[in-house]
Amino acid sequence: MLSCAIVGATGYTGAELVKILLRHPRVELAVLTTRQDSAIPLRNLVPGVSKKTSLEVRKFSFAQIQRKADVVFLTLPHTEAMAVAARFFRAGKIVIDLSADFRIRNAALYEKWYGVKHRERKLLGEAVYGLPELYRESIRRSNLIANPGCYPTGACLGIAPLLRDGLVEPTSIVIDAKSGVSGAGKKLNPATQFCEVDENFYAYKVNRHQHTPEMEEVLSEVAGVRIHLTFVPHLLPLTRGILTTLYMKKRPQVRVADIRKSFERAYADEPFVRVHKEGEFPALRDVQGTNFCDIGFSSSPDEDELIVITAIDNLIKGASGQAVQNLNIRSGFPEEEGLLG
Amino acid sequence: MLSCAIVGATGYTGAELVKILLRHPRVELAVLTTRQDSAIPLRNLVPGVSKKTSLEVRKFSFAQIQRKADVVFLTLPHTEAMAVAARFFRAGKIVIDLSADFRIRNAALYEKWYGVKHRERKLLGEAVYGLPELYRESIRRSNLIANPGCYPTGACLGIAPLLRDGLVEPTSIVIDAKSGVSGAGKKLNPATQFCEVDENFYAYKVNRHQHTPEMEEVLSEVAGVRIHLTFVPHLLPLTRGILTTLYMKKRPQVRVADIRKSFERAYADEPFVRVHKEGEFPALRDVQGTNFCDIGFSSSPDEDELIVITAIDNLIKGASGQAVQNLNIRSGFPEEEGLLG
Amino acid sequence: MLSCAIVGATGYTGAELVKILLRHPRVELAVLTTRQDSAIPLRNLVPGVSKKTSLEVRKFSFAQIQRKADVVFLTLPHTEAMAVAARFFRAGKIVIDLSADFRIRNAALYEKWYGVKHRERKLLGEAVYGLPELYRESIRRSNLIANPGCYPTGACLGIAPLLRDGLVEPTSIVIDAKSGVSGAGKKLNPATQFCEVDENFYAYKVNRHQHTPEMEEVLSEVAGVRIHLTFVPHLLPLTRGILTTLYMKKRPQVRVADIRKSFERAYADEPFVRVHKEGEFPALRDVQGTNFCDIGFSSSPDEDELIVITAIDNLIKGASGQAVQNLNIRSGFPEEEGLLG
Amino acid sequence: MLSCAIVGATGYTGAELVKILLRHPRVELAVLTTRQDSAIPLRNLVPGVSKKTSLEVRKFSFAQIQRKADVVFLTLPHTEAMAVAARFFRAGKIVIDLSADFRIRNAALYEKWYGVKHRERKLLGEAVYGLPELYRESIRRSNLIANPGCYPTGACLGIAPLLRDGLVEPTSIVIDAKSGVSGAGKKLNPATQFCEVDENFYAYKVNRHQHTPEMEEVLSEVAGVRIHLTFVPHLLPLTRGILTTLYMKKRPQVRVADIRKSFERAYADEPFVRVHKEGEFPALRDVQGTNFCDIGFSSSPDEDELIVITAIDNLIKGASGQAVQNLNIRSGFPEEEGLLG
Repeated sequence: MLSCAIVGATGYTGAELVKILLRHPRVELAVLTTRQDSAIPLRNLVPGVSKKTSLEVRKFSFAQIQRKADVVFLTLPHTEAMAVAARFFRAGKIVIDLSADFRIRNAALYEKWYGVKHRERKLLGEAVYGLPELYRESIRRSNLIANPGCYPTGACLGIAPLLRDGLVEPTSIVIDAKSGVSGAGKKLNPATQFCEVDENFYAYKVNRHQHTPEMEEVLSEVAGVRIHLTFVPHLLPLTRGILTTLYMKKRPQVRVADIRKSFERAYADEPFVRVHKEGEFPALRDVQGTNFCDIGFSSSPDEDELIVITAIDNLIKGASGQAVQNLNIRSGFPEEEGLLG
Repeated sequence: MLSCAIVGATGYTGAELVKILLRHPRVELAVLTTRQDSAIPLRNLVPGVSKKTSLEVRKFSFAQIQRKADVVFLTLPHTEAMAVAARFFRAGKIVIDLSADFRIRNAALYEKWYGVKHRERKLLGEAVYGLPELYRESIRRSNLIANPGCYPTGACLGIAPLLRDGLVEPTSIVIDAKSGVSGAGKKLNPATQFCEVDENFYAYKVNRHQHTPEMEEVLSEVAGVRIHLTFVPHLLPLTRGILTTLYMKKRPQVRVADIRKSFERAYADEPFVRVHKEGEFPALRDVQGTNFCDIGFSSSPDEDELIVITAIDNLIKGASGQAVQNLNIRSGFPEEEGLLG
Repeated sequence: MLSCAIVGATGYTGAELVKILLRHPRVELAVLTTRQDSAIPLRNLVPGVSKKTSLEVRKFSFAQIQRKADVVFLTLPHTEAMAVAARFFRAGKIVIDLSADFRIRNAALYEKWYGVKHRERKLLGEAVYGLPELYRESIRRSNLIANPGCYPTGACLGIAPLLRDGLVEPTSIVIDAKSGVSGAGKKLNPATQFCEVDENFYAYKVNRHQHTPEMEEVLSEVAGVRIHLTFVPHLLPLTRGILTTLYMKKRPQVRVADIRKSFERAYADEPFVRVHKEGEFPALRDVQGTNFCDIGFSSSPDEDELIVITAIDNLIKGASGQAVQNLNIRSGFPEEEGLLG
Repeated sequence: MLSCAIVGATGYTGAELVKILLRHPRVELAVLTTRQDSAIPLRNLVPGVSKKTSLEVRKFSFAQIQRKADVVFLTLPHTEAMAVAARFFRAGKIVIDLSADFRIRNAALYEKWYGVKHRERKLLGEAVYGLPELYRESIRRSNLIANPGCYPTGACLGIAPLLRDGLVEPTSIVIDAKSGVSGAGKKLNPATQFCEVDENFYAYKVNRHQHTPEMEEVLSEVAGVRIHLTFVPHLLPLTRGILTTLYMKKRPQVRVADIRKSFERAYADEPFVRVHKEGEFPALRDVQGTNFCDIGFSSSPDEDELIVITAIDNLIKGASGQAVQNLNIRSGFPEEEGLLG
């Protein structure tokens, strides 16, 4: 049994991570921590646990985790995670960080978008971007895994194979994404009060969302040229899921069969990506509560415009499920362990 | 044209009041105020106003309202309204107060439930409880109208005629009420964040809700004996409306036809109460966006248990619509003016 | 008073139309009809009407409408409206048809997309497309007004001025639209059962939606060249509203100030279009229950991609409100009459 | 491994049952059937299964199930299940029937409420009511388990211990229940179309719901006297969960501590019932996705009115989870197997 700690277990992604790891047959949840002083019974976070469970979330203690855990998951706010990650990394732990702090290799870019100094620049070279479909081999060997953002997961999985295979223009990529409210986290916010979201819908942070540089860096690396994206996120009146509608220009002579083959080549052996037949598109319902990313695509023969739609559960494939997928890869476990059903 | 001011126009009930009064053919909206320093264009509160409207919500000024308005509506928080109401009342204005501050005649009871000293006890004798179906004649003559709470409106309209006519036992009255989230107002609250309410449902303040003394006082007066209520409010995952399911014991020999006649006697001439046929019950959909209270009832011939269900829009009949109904009564306008459609 | 009839008053758009016309000071609702045999009290459709209202929806009778009404609104299903519209048009009535039957001038195109023969081809030349912002002058003189589809209203208002002013490329226009469920109408449908829509979100009829030819015909006329659109509609888990996110390519040398000026020129005097400042975008909340179309736009100086977002209430500006706006124009009434508040 | 079949796997309860059994370590899902002719891939029902799963739902074949399964779950419509249940029972299978057909022992009562002849009256004596907290010992020995209705599960668990211990009056019990829409099943229904349920709330089948005789029979047996219930179900605008607010009269001298002790005695060792501290009440959120029934209660010292609130997930403890709990009991498995997490 691999001994795991979760630092910041009381947010939405933390609770989801607890829930997944409790079902994982090769993991022992050794330590769960929070910033709050008083202990929180696990059943308050994960209502489905056995009545006999005595596990609690307790105030953070470095020493305790240092002693008890092999792997440390961090679900701390951006800019707060970097110091904690560094400390555990230096103590020899495997660190899986769900914050943005080690996702962007270019520290200046991070600092511009997150508005703080990156105080662990040296560690950026150690970190691997934890998107298994692109970086599985590096994940196997890294002790600092930067778990991707929710929007980048849905967008990159729908774009990367086509860019890599040279089937679409690297310019003119449009990402029209729609996310459930849990993506905004648990912090109190007038914009996410029920009466403001219920029966409402709108775009926010148009071309200003902090996930932009993360996506641009990954996709630029894949394409071999600098990619500039148009990214418009929208807020859906529902709790979980991201549907991403992608618009790309096919390169001359590219046919829809080439698109299909590219996706199949990339994902046929991937345990958590499912590609639909041409013209069939996924719904959030198909992926909620799962670690899957479903992909549909469509293109008229006489048109150069290509439509790709991806669907993920933002708390699972977009956060905690992907973190466990990374754990499985890093630990040599079967990749689906704990993530099906 | 009657000149009106609204003090506290930016909350949910304030905005609804603005919307209703804008359509009212005999009212001029002279002053709209807020505690905030910067002016707010009216279209931010009421999206349907003409592009040409230049009306704004401005920082509160007693002198300005004193000069310009005949009637002052207060949609201030409980405990804050009493001083402002007293000042305008003493300045000779007609005050329609949507807070709880003058609803309860027994000051000690008010102080127990609201946790503050009532500093305008003398005015309590001037105030009339603004439920037109029970107190229309007093409303015609009062300059201080305490607009009822949303739960009391839905509950009292379903209970009062039966108590008055001696058809139900004054003991054993159960009020199982279900309210939309706008009833909680606009203030930031972890319990009303979208992800906490969406797909959720629960009871709150069981037998501890501050509307209890208000209902007990009104119904005790109607019944002529002291009424003690069981009151369980629940929070619905929707924005507007209160459905109240009432359980009462019929007195011996009382038949369902007596119930029907009692409601008909009470409400046949009421412009805003609609009584269904026995066994037909209202839905929130039937009253949302209207000033109506719809009432259904049912009882088996061999049973003493009586079921009455009422439905209102908490922001209209439960707040701002009823305030305008009171204005119409007080000002001698046709009672439906501004309140239909 | 202008005497109006509504044929098909029991659907969502029919009921909305009744509600608007009841408030209209220059209109008398003379006849309301349905296909059903038994009469329906008006309060079942429009819960806010006075208790004294005796108006009912009755079984359709041509003779009765012929005798009583000057204007006939049709809210019948596509393909069923054309015969009824033709009959009333030939009887000298002003016909405002909310179906698609006279929206597309090219009968062959209509037949391809709607799958039926157009049996009133001759009348197509008489019909005017009822989008006031583009065709106000023709609407003033026509007795057959084809009220636009909901998606085309939201899309065309965001695109037309820019095409007309030559600011964007006529190729590469992407329409990513998100609609509430009432757009699907009242007919029973497994896809619109509550449990299938609640907490769900997906694209449908990708590049196959029947509103495509309507938009392409209007925008091609505006642009003077044949426009081919990429149109991806999505279904939102809410009842009312369409948010349309538009992606266009600016022509060389076009600046964001040019975009702003184009929208201002087009809409400064329009009573029902509101243009936001650059970088501010509308929410459905801003337009629900109103006849407004709100427009926001954004563009980076160094990028050629332009983002425009429009919001409408699909049942009002996207259907019944626009129908009344057309009535006001055709009848010489003030254009806002009955449509504010 | 125990080999199981599910007859009727495509409804909401069927799919939930598949999902639970797939995770169950001692069960093999041998056969899944439907009335439809064409096979349905399992991933269409349970999106979280492995991409490698080849399991399908196929057209019903008695012979195939006869050959392959030890246990047969029936999720067929009421009145259709009885014949199928009888056939498998006579073939020696363990039958767990999620319909109402064997829940009511009094066949005349069944026939009155369900409107059909009971054609397997002889088998009623073989059937056990599958509420483990009341009938665990009988469940261990029965081959025909009538899985309880969703409303009866939530109501009986909150009432039975108090009746059994003589703490509440057997008259005057009020059940005010609020259910999510999945309780209505998957069949097409105008009342459960999205636009009819969204933002709406109402009572239905007031004192006429077919779960009434089931609850009355069980509770009468527990109390030893004939119980007559007041039962008012309401429809919540959400997908899953039932919250049941119960009103009972305490018998003279009964204190709230007696209530607490009664619940503790009944449920301390129950794996799937959790009793809150006095005055703390459950929310649907606490039980959704779990097999738990959570119970809260409250009573003023000077009042005889007792309030008990229970919460369950109607598809799990109210249907498929309870069916698996019954399977575990009948098969001698640990009772929590497959039901936690």
